[in-house]
Amino acid sequence: MSDALADLDLVALADAIAAGDVTAEAATSSALEAATRHSALNAVVRLDPEGALEAARAADRRRAASGVSGPLHGVPLAHKDMFYRAGRVTGCGSIIRRDFVATTTSSLLERLDVAGAIEIGQLHMAEFAMGPTGHNAHLGRCGNPWNPAAISGGSSSGSGAAVGARIVAGALGSDTGGSVRLPAALCGVVGLKPTHGLLPQDGMMPLSESLDTAGPLARSSRSVARLLGVLTGGACDYEAALAQDLRGITIGRPTGYFAEDLDPPVATAFDDALRCLADLGARVVDVAFPDGEQYAEMAALVWAPEAAAQHLSWLRDRPGDYGPQVRNRLLHGLAIPAVHHVLARRLRGSHLAAVLAGPFSLCDVIATPAMRTVTPIASAVEADSGPAMDRVVGGLSALTRPVSYLGLPALVTPMGHDARGLPMGLQLIARPQDEQSLLTIGACFEAATRHLDRRPPSAP
Amino acid sequence: MSDALADLDLVALADAIAAGDVTAEAATSSALEAATRHSALNAVVRLDPEGALEAARAADRRRAASGVSGPLHGVPLAHKDMFYRAGRVTGCGSIIRRDFVATTTSSLLERLDVAGAIEIGQLHMAEFAMGPTGHNAHLGRCGNPWNPAAISGGSSSGSGAAVGARIVAGALGSDTGGSVRLPAALCGVVGLKPTHGLLPQDGMMPLSESLDTAGPLARSSRSVARLLGVLTGGACDYEAALAQDLRGITIGRPTGYFAEDLDPPVATAFDDALRCLADLGARVVDVAFPDGEQYAEMAALVWAPEAAAQHLSWLRDRPGDYGPQVRNRLLHGLAIPAVHHVLARRLRGSHLAAVLAGPFSLCDVIATPAMRTVTPIASAVEADSGPAMDRVVGGLSALTRPVSYLGLPALVTPMGHDARGLPMGLQLIARPQDEQSLLTIGACFEAATRHLDRRPPSAP
Repeated sequence: MSDALADLDLVALADAIAAGDVTAEAATSSALEAATRHSALNAVVRLDPEGALEAARAADRRRAASGVSGPLHGVPLAHKDMFYRAGRVTGCGSIIRRDFVATTTSSLLERLDVAGAIEIGQLHMAEFAMGPTGHNAHLGRCGNPWNPAAISGGSSSGSGAAVGARIVAGALGSDTGGSVRLPAALCGVVGLKPTHGLLPQDGMMPLSESLDTAGPLARSSRSVARLLGVLTGGACDYEAALAQDLRGITIGRPTGYFAEDLDPPVATAFDDALRCLADLGARVVDVAFPDGEQYAEMAALVWAPEAAAQHLSWLRDRPGDYGPQVRNRLLHGLAIPAVHHVLARRLRGSHLAAVLAGPFSLCDVIATPAMRTVTPIASAVEADSGPAMDRVVGGLSALTRPVSYLGLPALVTPMGHDARGLPMGLQLIARPQDEQSLLTIGACFEAATRHLDRRPPSAP
Repeated sequence: MSDALADLDLVALADAIAAGDVTAEAATSSALEAATRHSALNAVVRLDPEGALEAARAADRRRAASGVSGPLHGVPLAHKDMFYRAGRVTGCGSIIRRDFVATTTSSLLERLDVAGAIEIGQLHMAEFAMGPTGHNAHLGRCGNPWNPAAISGGSSSGSGAAVGARIVAGALGSDTGGSVRLPAALCGVVGLKPTHGLLPQDGMMPLSESLDTAGPLARSSRSVARLLGVLTGGACDYEAALAQDLRGITIGRPTGYFAEDLDPPVATAFDDALRCLADLGARVVDVAFPDGEQYAEMAALVWAPEAAAQHLSWLRDRPGDYGPQVRNRLLHGLAIPAVHHVLARRLRGSHLAAVLAGPFSLCDVIATPAMRTVTPIASAVEADSGPAMDRVVGGLSALTRPVSYLGLPALVTPMGHDARGLPMGLQLIARPQDEQSLLTIGACFEAATRHLDRRPPSAP
């Protein structure tokens, strides 16, 4: 029973609970069992079995008495350990905040509560959300459900791994330069970085106020749409986008930066993906999108000083409580002159305008791979500092970070598996506030390719 | 005739033109003559007699045909030489932009045009709006109409001097740390720095996007209200505030930073001003407002890198075309770390909240002197660089810069004259968007004290 439950996609699970075919308690028990069974993945940092089961039983009673309370009634979820709930520890993947008890609750958690979701625990993350690999000097590494030796991606490592391993059907992550999209790509699930500013940022650990955004991960664009509707407070019916097909949609295939230096399996999978989208009725056109490297550099000038400013007093008082990788990256942020930061922030608007007037004048959505490379094995990216670390970080986020700088929404969905069976991700990028087009394309692509039906070897 | 015209306050002049008692042509001729007569003041950098007279005659014809076109119909004005008009040179007090021809027109100039105003020329300013004294290494010094040896204040030096000398009845300046308020105080006129963000910033030379605001100068709060109504696009009837009296208004007298180190004549005039306001019906209470020094330092961390970023390419390519004072201050901005800038910007909201919850919980408006000292003689503040320059700049703007950091609106109006006959300014500070209270208090104070009736020795 629990295997079958774990295999249900989030919307299917929510519908089964709403229909009375599954109880919230059974779904929650299944998720808790899966979390325990997969403890070697290190995706969960804190589990709350008693609280979750109690909430699930209350949800079942509520349903019996008065029907479902919202579109996630009784659905067990877990989130990156950086979303605050008043009275509860939020560790942020760190020693420094290991015992930090939040005094407020994130608006996003409140909205999930109102929608009826159950929270079963808190998930692994890179220390203070800084790191794209899944590495954490204090918590240990988060494994990849497709191969424990492979990296999970980061910084929302546990969100990717827990959804990929089918522990939970959905999770919140956060994305400042790729931190939702990379774990989604590497763990073979769907992840959305919404338009910067679309979701409230209160009650979540800040890294860079100019770039941070929360984002949902799930096992289909359909389920991401359900989560996004809840997270935005119901202002927009994102699930309506799922009824569209791809006729009339133009997808841009970028030349230049986003097409360069792709590992051959990535290049092949990307070609296949575009062919599939064309077969589904989309028009695919080449678009010039040359300035990705500059945008990636600008993103670093924006986020690094903002992060260092957040950490200034801890860097002074508790430098030894950081892992070396994170401390070194924060110290780098301290050394950036204000003028470079000001210019990078100031130019954001004109760069966005250029991209809208350039490639986005020719297409609705731009498709790129989520990463240039296939998924690295953990031992290959264990750099703590210096140029080696810069290469690892820069390499993994090369295609995600420019999108963060521009503030655009982007969806990652699986585009196949390499010869080792490790998933590869397709990144779809839209104009500001056009999450709908991403969800339409993602849902059509997923229905056609069925990449998401493939189960990781470690799944229940 | 021209003397009598020059003595008319802006609203009186506009009303006389609207009533047909004075023609726009006569008013404009008078202003042009006054500009020429006062050329030794160096307040005007470019005069456009032909264009202004032609516009004035057209205004007279328009009035004859169809009545007045707006609340400034036919009124001759002149503005700080940093507001762009398409096709015209805007020099910004510099060599570098000496021949810069704008391709757009500032929204503020467009609104003044629509209201019927005539622009007779462009006014002296500190190089790139950096400098509180009236010094300009390229244009020479702008004199003070009350005593040519005294400084005019800056950076809107020509705006203060031209209105003070009764060349024009109103002018635009800009204020980043005191640049409207200081020339208003030193030249004995009324100047308003509106709430940051109230007025559009397009088409004006940027110095610091976080702090810049345009602002009007005139010879009464009544006239400033008329100008503000036009500059805000008529969204709010600021002249209605002039009908209020001071009963029910509480004025805060700050203890701490804003009350310290006042020159005795300033302290005496300030005491007299508060007594007058109390006599007029206001309740005057002491309020703690201790953190002015910190806010002034934060303002420097915000503006200096933003200014340096604006100037980065010129600092590289044309360093010799800056005056040494301005170049040195820009280089200082280059040396500021991004983390300090980020923190200063990030803390702005919480500092503002603290001021609103602190002193502004006890009063409607806070009164301070505009400057701690009486007006310096120019030879006393001729420092080009180093600690001496920092002392001069910091000293002159000590009471205005903290207000810029907080983004609050502030009005400066004369509070008397020292033994040398040089004016001293009262600064009134309100909550965000409460320009009305400032105008009410300013108008009542001016009517009671009649300081503005006193004519400078150099006036027509």
